[in-house]
Amino acid sequence: MNADTARPLVTLDEIRAAAARIRGVARRTPLVHGSSSPRATTLLLKCENMQVAGAFKIRGAANMLARLDRDDLARGVITYSSGNHGQALACAAQLLGAPAVVVMPTTAPSVKVNGARSFGAEVVFAGTTSSERKAEAERIRLARGLVMVPPFDHPWIIAGQGTVGLEILEDCPDLVEVYVPVGGGGLLAGVAAAVKGLRPDARVIGVEPAGAAKMSRSLAAGAPVTLPSTSSIADGLLPVRPGDLTFAHAQRLVHEVVTVDDDSLADAVRYLAREAKILVEPSGAASVAAVRQRYRSLDAIDRPIVAVLSGGNIALEQMAAILMG
Amino acid sequence: MNADTARPLVTLDEIRAAAARIRGVARRTPLVHGSSSPRATTLLLKCENMQVAGAFKIRGAANMLARLDRDDLARGVITYSSGNHGQALACAAQLLGAPAVVVMPTTAPSVKVNGARSFGAEVVFAGTTSSERKAEAERIRLARGLVMVPPFDHPWIIAGQGTVGLEILEDCPDLVEVYVPVGGGGLLAGVAAAVKGLRPDARVIGVEPAGAAKMSRSLAAGAPVTLPSTSSIADGLLPVRPGDLTFAHAQRLVHEVVTVDDDSLADAVRYLAREAKILVEPSGAASVAAVRQRYRSLDAIDRPIVAVLSGGNIALEQMAAILMG
Repeated sequence: MNADTARPLVTLDEIRAAAARIRGVARRTPLVHGSSSPRATTLLLKCENMQVAGAFKIRGAANMLARLDRDDLARGVITYSSGNHGQALACAAQLLGAPAVVVMPTTAPSVKVNGARSFGAEVVFAGTTSSERKAEAERIRLARGLVMVPPFDHPWIIAGQGTVGLEILEDCPDLVEVYVPVGGGGLLAGVAAAVKGLRPDARVIGVEPAGAAKMSRSLAAGAPVTLPSTSSIADGLLPVRPGDLTFAHAQRLVHEVVTVDDDSLADAVRYLAREAKILVEPSGAASVAAVRQRYRSLDAIDRPIVAVLSGGNIALEQMAAILMG
Repeated sequence: MNADTARPLVTLDEIRAAAARIRGVARRTPLVHGSSSPRATTLLLKCENMQVAGAFKIRGAANMLARLDRDDLARGVITYSSGNHGQALACAAQLLGAPAVVVMPTTAPSVKVNGARSFGAEVVFAGTTSSERKAEAERIRLARGLVMVPPFDHPWIIAGQGTVGLEILEDCPDLVEVYVPVGGGGLLAGVAAAVKGLRPDARVIGVEPAGAAKMSRSLAAGAPVTLPSTSSIADGLLPVRPGDLTFAHAQRLVHEVVTVDDDSLADAVRYLAREAKILVEPSGAASVAAVRQRYRSLDAIDRPIVAVLSGGNIALEQMAAILMG
């Protein structure tokens, strides 16, 4: 069953154009060794935690903003994500001189509120649920003539995130497998479009929390499904439903989507601190959790595989608590 | 007063030869952005915490071992450092198939004992002071016909550490300043020899703990001095005296050596975790502590400056305690 035949996927050319467009806003992140062991494991880490604003999200936001015309930019942009996407949009908008509004729940932690405000965004509070935030954002968008920049389900956002895949293949042309954390699926869709476009025999594997398995369930059902609720320490991977367009990419380009539990996410955060000397938020470590679940010993990996570390935005006290195990 | 005229400094050619020699043992580490802020600071971080065995030390150890003849390697090597050098020597020796002995204090933490043993080294315990360890190592060296691999004061060690400087200039050819943590001075000497050899107008700045200011004091005195004792959370920077050869390099090639206190070391560790998403031991963060002491706002740095992060070997519980401030 191919419910997605009507939806054109993002192309390699669109991702290449995005790469040129976001240069100077997003940065090229390093691909580093997955361990300090001298027995070279071929696990490599794509460090989007070292990206501008601490997560891959700036790529999609910057690509979308770069495609808006002058009048749209002057009126401004809006989103309803309280997480890394909200900060990234605020950051990209500030760099391009556009006003930005981020609608957050009344319960948003002050670190996230301050994060968006530090990039000059106007923060509006609305209810506690995602649907309340989305409705309020829609109301403000219409009232002020703003452009909505969705967190994942848009071809320009996906093309921007796909630049992660281009960079991985530039640094690791003989890639065999790449593991990608899955929230709404924008990063997975973009990386899959880039990697399968350039290297069709490489496997792209999505990873989501067992408590937020929206993409695995949707793939099993053959169409996007909405979970009643989600729960995980990976607070960036909690959407209850994949996007229609990100789902279409996963259905056609992704080898499989696997799940990891919270214990293995916390273990992966500790592993990365101890062995790779890198700080990653639990969401960003999902890829490594899946690699460790699949391969008993990372020293035994003898083909180039890449785990994308999607973000590193976590309060130091929370990181300390995870490190203490 | 040039007490060092009789001591030839390590040359650029020797460092280039070391770079070729250690390829395949040490790895080329990334030079990454010093902040996730979009206002690009030009502070760059040389990530030796991501080096094999978690510190720059493998470079010098591998270079020295590569210069030994087959018979010497077969009999084996010995050192009396209980820290990163001991682990690095054990690691390099294992890779080259040579037996290694590391003499440690009876009070050595089990993480360090296990570290050396995990690389196949024989660990011998001797007293609690550096002089007791050195004497015991010397006794075993003579009895077994081993080669002593000192932690810093040897031209082959300095040449190996100097490969850090070569890589920095390859990635950042318009370097203006480089900050280097100072223990015994091997890394400082090597980086200075490489950087001043290739770019005489760049400034090389050493950084040591206020509680272990052996190099600053020696430079002020015009000759190596021995401190009565040293104390700092930077446990890798505690030698009481610089080497004669490392001192000679500092005297002739280094712009200045500055000191940082323990509070600023801990602050620098937290800064690197929060802003660069990198985990560094306090010794390794000394360079960044000095940069932050000199430049009020890192956003205001508009010339390429590099801070060498010399190592990342720290127990997760200890890191958690520092992150909690």
